[in-house]
Amino acid sequence: MTRHRPSLGTLLHHVHVSGPLSRAALAERMGVNRSTILALTAELAGAGLVTEERPAGTTGAGRPSLVVRPSPHVFVLAIDVAVDRLTVARVGLGGQILDRRSAGRTRTGVDLDTVVRKLASLGHELLSEAPAESVCVGVGASYCGMIRPGDGMVRYGPEMGWVDQAFGTELARALDISRPVAVGNEAHLGALAEYERGAGVGVPDLIYLHGDVGVGGGILVGGRLMGGDGGYGCEVGHMLVNPFDGRDCLCGSQGCLEAETGEYALIAAAGRAPGSATVAEVVRDALAGDQVASAAVAGIGDWLGIGVANLINLFNPGVVIFGGMLRDVFTAAAPQVTARISRHAMPVSRERAQLRVSALADDATLIGAADLGFACLLDDPLALG
Amino acid sequence: MTRHRPSLGTLLHHVHVSGPLSRAALAERMGVNRSTILALTAELAGAGLVTEERPAGTTGAGRPSLVVRPSPHVFVLAIDVAVDRLTVARVGLGGQILDRRSAGRTRTGVDLDTVVRKLASLGHELLSEAPAESVCVGVGASYCGMIRPGDGMVRYGPEMGWVDQAFGTELARALDISRPVAVGNEAHLGALAEYERGAGVGVPDLIYLHGDVGVGGGILVGGRLMGGDGGYGCEVGHMLVNPFDGRDCLCGSQGCLEAETGEYALIAAAGRAPGSATVAEVVRDALAGDQVASAAVAGIGDWLGIGVANLINLFNPGVVIFGGMLRDVFTAAAPQVTARISRHAMPVSRERAQLRVSALADDATLIGAADLGFACLLDDPLALG
Repeated sequence: MTRHRPSLGTLLHHVHVSGPLSRAALAERMGVNRSTILALTAELAGAGLVTEERPAGTTGAGRPSLVVRPSPHVFVLAIDVAVDRLTVARVGLGGQILDRRSAGRTRTGVDLDTVVRKLASLGHELLSEAPAESVCVGVGASYCGMIRPGDGMVRYGPEMGWVDQAFGTELARALDISRPVAVGNEAHLGALAEYERGAGVGVPDLIYLHGDVGVGGGILVGGRLMGGDGGYGCEVGHMLVNPFDGRDCLCGSQGCLEAETGEYALIAAAGRAPGSATVAEVVRDALAGDQVASAAVAGIGDWLGIGVANLINLFNPGVVIFGGMLRDVFTAAAPQVTARISRHAMPVSRERAQLRVSALADDATLIGAADLGFACLLDDPLALG
Repeated sequence: MTRHRPSLGTLLHHVHVSGPLSRAALAERMGVNRSTILALTAELAGAGLVTEERPAGTTGAGRPSLVVRPSPHVFVLAIDVAVDRLTVARVGLGGQILDRRSAGRTRTGVDLDTVVRKLASLGHELLSEAPAESVCVGVGASYCGMIRPGDGMVRYGPEMGWVDQAFGTELARALDISRPVAVGNEAHLGALAEYERGAGVGVPDLIYLHGDVGVGGGILVGGRLMGGDGGYGCEVGHMLVNPFDGRDCLCGSQGCLEAETGEYALIAAAGRAPGSATVAEVVRDALAGDQVASAAVAGIGDWLGIGVANLINLFNPGVVIFGGMLRDVFTAAAPQVTARISRHAMPVSRERAQLRVSALADDATLIGAADLGFACLLDDPLALG
């Protein structure tokens, strides 16, 4: 049986990402014959991971290819720690969000212990309300900061004031559910989610920009996340774009892309008091003709365009995806962004680069966290027993 | 025999990069037993690609492991088209430069036909003077511009004014030696060469910055060149660093890293007339205490440091290597570069990033071109017959 294990994970990955697929379609995608699919599906069904059924609308005549469907009982806990909001969800095999709980957060002074306790409490609520026959197979968490691979240590989370906080370890301890707990950077996970099932499907050289309060990035090179030497790559928000009179950045530098295009910059440029308006509200006012808001959005778009032009020159991406609150910003400031790209990105570098907004919208990072939670199962579907 | 072919290439690659190796060392590196090495070596020796001999200094007693040595008769033509100079060399299997010819070039107005004719003429000279028993197995060329993978089309070479010039095809036609001719970007090839046998050995997340007249980049992610969607990634020289009063760049933009740190910028900042001094001369004067030259070098170093800080935030590299004329600049302006990195690169991103100068010095791009020329042979050592 063990010789099938890599193929078991591949098959399960296909139905996890694409949803129900006929045996015939699986055979074609995996380049194996239908008897192999039959054997693999039997093993996965025996482990409770998939079900098989006749396709809808088939008549009694002939022998239609059975449809393989991810089990509705298998799920992960997906956790999203954004600057302003904590979210925990049950996400099923297949990627559907089954249930979720959120809690607002004060922006500053929230320590590791408080955050972990709140997340564990939300998680336990969801677990206790899950159907009795359902099974949690893992936990994946998205965090708005730099994460050490392996143990989920938050090396740096400037918006929350965290330095070297043992988030992954403490979260696993507080949840205490004997399932693997993995943590990743929010924009990294958003990039992977958009590549698997969002605006980046089929584009292995992809840049995902995530606006939370700051600006994060997830960059895929040849279909793989670009981690760099220590797993800390893709910090697009701290690219210096304004070397002269740049705004102060939480990282201690000035003129970073995040300082010039993040939430604080937009709110200030729109003449609003900190905390009195959201990015979405300023963008809405700009689109409705408010001149101060319009000028603020255009100014932010100008800096954003410089950042994107630089990324296009450096990475020659197939697509740049605007996620989180940058969806709103890009929607309103596309003229500024595209003008800067035309001016500063080389024609050869930009000739095939598409600009898109996130297809997974506010759930991109949460779905990415869920996929991280499913990684162990998909790596070896029979290992969890 | 054909079942050995992948291993044949691996063995040949080891002696190409490391030089003579004992059978025992090869067995250990490749994780195979010595009888497999014996069989592989016999095939490669039969094809004239390696020789075997007793190690120097062994006595008659015992049976020392024979040393496998790349054949001294196998070579490629390596071509380096820099902005100011054309170089053609015979480079042996093992990476040694056996012979070379160079020619200066007028900076502007040199068309494809003239360049190709000159290169072919130098190449034919070298071939005619090569020992009778030697064998050319390929041609690799490095070019100072953006190269289309596959056919070596120069999509954009601003310093030479080239747009969509069929350099690879025309070079192959002019050389007419029925060997594969491959073309790559100079900084890409320099990066790969430094990783194989220079300042980046063992560091798979690596940034190589190449100063020619402009500034190019070659970036390895996980040990592979980051090509991007079309093969045009790594254009670090056109990252916008000075958005306000930036110097005009040959690409049509202003304030690009290349415009602020390239040869023209340094010569101008040093108060010299264009063409009246080299980068090396200005740096020498700066190190000798010339205040104008010192200020010029420091100013350039400041911009270079901003660029490198941005790259460290984006790529979290294990090493940044300064090559070409940036070796001189970095040597004199290291304080400015490191100060900018400290100020603008995140501590977590830079904590393990080394700064080094190229170990292959002026030959990095030429050695990279030679490796490109050897690629077909190393991919399948018996294919050339």
